[in-house]
Parts: sequence; structure tokens; C-alpha cells
Amino acid sequence: MKCVRCRAKPETYLRAHNAAFCRPCYLEHFRRQVERAIRRERMLAPTDRVLVAISGGKDSLALWDVLVHLGYATTGLYLAQGIGEYSARSRTLVESFAAARSLPLTVVDLAQEEGGLDIPTVAGLTRRSPCAACGTLKRHHFDRAARAGGYDVLATGHNLDDEAARLFGNVLHWQRDHLARQRPVLEASAAGFVRKVKPLYLLSEYETATYAFMRGIEYVVEECPNSTGATQLLYKNLLNRLEAESPGTKGTFLREFLRSGQPAFAAVDERAAGTCERCDQPSFGRVCSYCALVNEVERKRPGRHVGEAS
Amino acid sequence: MKCVRCRAKPETYLRAHNAAFCRPCYLEHFRRQVERAIRRERMLAPTDRVLVAISGGKDSLALWDVLVHLGYATTGLYLAQGIGEYSARSRTLVESFAAARSLPLTVVDLAQEEGGLDIPTVAGLTRRSPCAACGTLKRHHFDRAARAGGYDVLATGHNLDDEAARLFGNVLHWQRDHLARQRPVLEASAAGFVRKVKPLYLLSEYETATYAFMRGIEYVVEECPNSTGATQLLYKNLLNRLEAESPGTKGTFLREFLRSGQPAFAAVDERAAGTCERCDQPSFGRVCSYCALVNEVERKRPGRHVGEAS
Repeated sequence: MKCVRCRAKPETYLRAHNAAFCRPCYLEHFRRQVERAIRRERMLAPTDRVLVAISGGKDSLALWDVLVHLGYATTGLYLAQGIGEYSARSRTLVESFAAARSLPLTVVDLAQEEGGLDIPTVAGLTRRSPCAACGTLKRHHFDRAARAGGYDVLATGHNLDDEAARLFGNVLHWQRDHLARQRPVLEASAAGFVRKVKPLYLLSEYETATYAFMRGIEYVVEECPNSTGATQLLYKNLLNRLEAESPGTKGTFLREFLRSGQPAFAAVDERAAGTCERCDQPSFGRVCSYCALVNEVERKRPGRHVGEAS
Repeated sequence: MKCVRCRAKPETYLRAHNAAFCRPCYLEHFRRQVERAIRRERMLAPTDRVLVAISGGKDSLALWDVLVHLGYATTGLYLAQGIGEYSARSRTLVESFAAARSLPLTVVDLAQEEGGLDIPTVAGLTRRSPCAACGTLKRHHFDRAARAGGYDVLATGHNLDDEAARLFGNVLHWQRDHLARQRPVLEASAAGFVRKVKPLYLLSEYETATYAFMRGIEYVVEECPNSTGATQLLYKNLLNRLEAESPGTKGTFLREFLRSGQPAFAAVDERAAGTCERCDQPSFGRVCSYCALVNEVERKRPGRHVGEAS
């Protein structure tokens, strides 16, 4: 087997595409895939100021690397969530990555800046799973940081495996509103949500890991310690079994959804975002999910309010 | 643990419902579930003449047994498909079942009555999988037999596992037209499709097997020999893993689809059945899938036409 582009000795083989690549051609191929997704879905304009959400994992760092390579004006955004050793290590890696390349990085420390609302605190005080709390906190801080910094768009490193697993979960429960809004581009809303894009949405976990490895990017390899037993991982496993049986299944599942399924849900779901009664930020409910979380924490932790100096 | 209805010693436990039953209460429970599905979905009227498609497996025989018990006027329809020992054994069991209860049974022998178009012949002469050929032949003969006998409705034994696996396959490929028409009741169409109902659609494979066992029904236990490696079985396995992890998943998947997903697809898919150019029977395409199959067989088997005396 030879590299499909230059016939050199290959270093990786993509089963879903039945194609092998040498290192330089793979890097080129990967970047082109990202570039094409950005162009096809009109994710970014050349003059956009892009905030890139960086977790310290392979996907977000690979994305940042590619966006810089493609010439976009990017700033990294790291959320310090207070998940012990895992958060400490990911923060170090992210800061080194940015420093080595002289890239601007914004760090939001949940424990310091948000009345102590980090993941362990929230999960300890409420009945939410750490993953649910994490999702709510992330969405809130991503929007807030993007608005505060005047960014045009927020980019996240969600890959094909993430998106397929999320779709799988949404489909198992037929969450029509979630299905209507699962797209690689979410436009900014009048209510104040920032524009969000996922340039890696058609690239598999294996592809982003290969890119990060070939680029010598140091990233957190371990899964978040809270994710053990998470249903998301079960869904990924099941989809991997289908993919092994029939390579390309995951890609077809997501692409055909976007082509055929999602528009059907969008056609019947016209729910527009309103404004949260409590914080005036955009929300699909009366109170946004972040304020609902804060309410719950405050009920359990009397005498200290979120936002007050600690 | 005791029977949830009478507190007697239980014989079976349903994990998805977290309930145990003794034999008489289970049989009563099962029949009530069928009765409720029939009423809720308006599947059958008391005066309907019901044709019941019988394969010889647990589901179809359990269904026939329940429908007779509930007082419906039923006739069994058995399709002899020519799949060696498997077909021979299932035919014997179906004929014994009907004879022992003095129930009317119609047998259609594909090899004899249809110019030799049984499953091995079709699968051998075309590029279709036996399962695809079987589906096409079944649909054709079910409609034909129901019309020929003047039946009001055709009932099939599809259970929750069948319907969930079928839904899973439709979802993996986002087949919007299939998704729009996956319902437990398909009304008769002006084009000539007979009314079709699936009274067991919310009862699991385990539940129908338990019913058949408790009723002492002899049925073909083996899977069809052609189904080895069928994707349908893979989907069932994956759904069983999800069900083991979180009991009730399969039921939620199907019920929420019917409540929330399917109407979205039906709203955007208004395709009505037309008439097949070749046989004048109902069809969604120019030529119905049965005639497309026949065409393919005739091209491969020159000199002998389907329908001619053999």
C-alpha cells in the first residue's frame, strides 16, 4: 500500500476512505478537509475574529493548529473547571501550546471568577451529573467570553465521533428540539447567542488523533475522570462496532441526518430563543439553564450567592 | 418477589417494567397489552375479517392465539418460501397449530404458484440478498392474498425488537420516506394496499417468547438460515446492549419516535402510492418492487416467464 497522493511509504490508513497517506500528505489532506468544511458550510469569513474553545484534548488543539495554519485570527479560550489533576494537567498543556506559538489565550477559572461554581462544587450540591453541569457551564461561559471579547464566532473541536454519538443520544429519545438544532454551524441569534461552528465535524477521532500525533502536539490523552460510564462513551462504542462492521457508517449517519433528517425537524420546530428572566442572556426557557443551575446551587448553599465576592 | 397482580409465586420477570408475574396473570397481562394496543391505535373493528401472516415463529403464532382468544374472525396466511428444512419445518408447525384449533389457514407456495419464484431461486438469479428478496415477495403476496380473499386487514407479528431494529436501520441511513411510513397501523390506500396492523409492536421478543412458551405453542426456534450475519440481527444486539444498560430504552426509542419523530417526517413527506405500470397493483415507483424483481429474474432466466405454467 502506498500514499494515495504521492505514492511514498504511508504512515496511516483510513479505513472509512480506504486510503493510505504519508505524513506530509496526511497533514495536507487533513487541513484541506477542514478548509473545505469551513468553505462549504460558510463557517468563517477571512476577517473574522475567532475564539477557539480549547480543552487540552487532541481535537481542540488540532483545530487551533489548523486554523492558525489557514491564517485565521484566533484566540484560545480555556475554562479551568477544577477537576483535580486532570484540569491541572490540561491547563499546563494548553498554556504551553499557546506560549510556544505566541498565540493569545484567555483563561476563565470557574473556581475564582464565578463564586466558586466549578464542576465538583456544582455536582456535589445538585443532583446533576458532572457531565450535565459541565455542558451547562461551558455553554454559558463560551457565550459570555465571546461577547465580552467582541469575537465574531466561537469554534469548537467536536469531531465526527462526538457528533455521531450526540446524534445517537438525541435519536434514542427523539428530542425534536435538539435534533432541529444539531448543525455544524449555529448562527448568532437576536437573543444574543454567539455564532458557533464545528470545523472538524466530519473528521473522526482517529483522524484528529493522527493529525495531533504527526504534528507533535502534546495533549491530554486520558478521558475526563468524570466521564467513566458516561452514556456518551457507550454510544461511541456501539457506533464503533457498526463502523467496524461497515466502514463509513458513522459518516453516513451524520451526513444523511444533516441532509435529510435535520431539515425535517427544523421544519416543524420553530422555537426561537428568548431572554432569561434572571440574567437577561439568551434562553430557550423562562430561565436559562445556567441560571437554573445557579438557583439550585444557591438553594443548597444558603448565605452565599453566586457572583458575590468569595 | 411476587406476582404483581395476585402475589402468587412468579414465573417470569420483566425488567423493563420491573414486574413479576405468575403464569395465569402473565397470559392475562399479555392479552390485555395486545387488546389495548388494538384499541388505542384503532387497529381492528369487531366485525373485521382479519388475515394473520404466520411464519411459524413465536410472534406470529402468539399473535394468532391472542386474536382468536379476543374473539376476532381470523384466517392464517402461510407463505411457503422454499428455504429447505427451515421452511418444511415451519409449514408443518403452522399446519398443526391451525388443525389443532380448527382455524382456517391459507397456504401460498411460492415455488408452485408463482412460476418458481421462491427465495433460493430469486437470490440465486439476482444480486439481491435473500432478506431483501423475502421482504419484497412477502409484501406482494400479503397484499395479493388479502385482496383475493376480501379481508379487511392484514395483521403481522412484528414485535418491539423487530420494530426498534427496523427503526434503527432507517435512522442510520435517514430514510425519510421509510421513517414517514413506519407506524403500527398503515391505512388501506386508494391505490390498493391492504390495511396493515402490528398488534405486538410494543411487546418485546422476550415477552412474546414467554407467552408462546406458557401457552405450550410449538414454534420454530431457529432463526431463518439466511439471516446469519443480517444487519437486522446486529442492530438487535446493539439495542439489547443499550437495554441491558438502561432497561426500557428500546420501548422509549420506538414510542417517542411514534409520538414525536414520525409525525415530523410525515409532515414533510407527502408521497402517495401510484399504480405499477406492469401489474396495475399499488406502487411507490413507476414499477412496483415485486415487478422489478420479476423483471430481473426474467432477464437472467431467458425463455421462461413468471406466471407461465412451469
